[in-house]
Amino acid sequence: VPKVSQEHLDARRRQILDGARAAFAKHGYDGATVAKLEAEIGLSRGAIFNYFQDKLDIFHALANEDSQRWLTNFEEEGIDGLFRRIAAEDGGWIGVYIEVIRRATTDPELRARIEQDEPAPQQRTAGQTIGALQQSGVLRDDVERKAIVAFVNTIALGLLLGKVQEQEVDIDQLLKLVHEGIDAR
Amino acid sequence: VPKVSQEHLDARRRQILDGARAAFAKHGYDGATVAKLEAEIGLSRGAIFNYFQDKLDIFHALANEDSQRWLTNFEEEGIDGLFRRIAAEDGGWIGVYIEVIRRATTDPELRARIEQDEPAPQQRTAGQTIGALQQSGVLRDDVERKAIVAFVNTIALGLLLGKVQEQEVDIDQLLKLVHEGIDAR
Repeated sequence: VPKVSQEHLDARRRQILDGARAAFAKHGYDGATVAKLEAEIGLSRGAIFNYFQDKLDIFHALANEDSQRWLTNFEEEGIDGLFRRIAAEDGGWIGVYIEVIRRATTDPELRARIEQDEPAPQQRTAGQTIGALQQSGVLRDDVERKAIVAFVNTIALGLLLGKVQEQEVDIDQLLKLVHEGIDAR
Repeated sequence: VPKVSQEHLDARRRQILDGARAAFAKHGYDGATVAKLEAEIGLSRGAIFNYFQDKLDIFHALANEDSQRWLTNFEEEGIDGLFRRIAAEDGGWIGVYIEVIRRATTDPELRARIEQDEPAPQQRTAGQTIGALQQSGVLRDDVERKAIVAFVNTIALGLLLGKVQEQEVDIDQLLKLVHEGIDAR
């Protein structure tokens, strides 16, 4: 039996994640049936669930990639990077998050699996990034870190929900008002 | 046949709305089956759908009451009143909104019915209230009204989504940062 290369495994995994993302965005989490996942990914269910335990496992892998990218943007480009990144996401895909967040409130198993999630260990949390920005004099330090975390988090959530409602937000103007709230003075 | 009084009709309508709100909050929009609506309301489906066309019609009536209350709070007590009101809402019920908003993106009929909704004619829209607060010197007028509308709306949406995630937000601290962004200086 020929050995399957790591490159091949990685490429298959990527193919599954990209196809699933498109299927979720198009049909919603619930609406993305296994048949629709197969059609969008271009692999049989046998192949797909050889790489991932179940549909939630695929969603989880995608959500982890997103949150790592958002946290990296935040760490490297500050609030502007974070909010611009969120504003550039696809509304259909963001709707899937919202659907899963909502579902988790009435589905204890889903909730438990979501709460297991932790940021990758080499990565700063949003709170750590905000603390560092306060220490370096970019963000104000005359209010508690957690107040800024809550402010930034609330606006990030609002941008996400706004995407689903297809609300057009002028992100430059929004950032101007955000900065006046939290920049060092 | 005895004439049914307006008081009786109003009380029945109220009973249906209150029971449906509880059923939606508990089971979600989709999960609130007609049997569960009957159980929570204490009336038969025949009686319920004598007052309302369908489940969406009930949701709509509830959502209209909420948005009128939020707009009234906003008009009478400003940003603080609006955000405190939203922060005090029940997370289960807010989850129903999120569920319906999400659904509307993939359900054209639902979307069309939601878009028909307009604020009650005697009521100011959020944009009109913000314009009035700019004119009276409460809010800054050196940025466009629509920038403040987008900022306030994004934070309101973020508070709503945060409720569903059961995130505790210190609303006083949040308001402090919000005011620094948008108050007249």
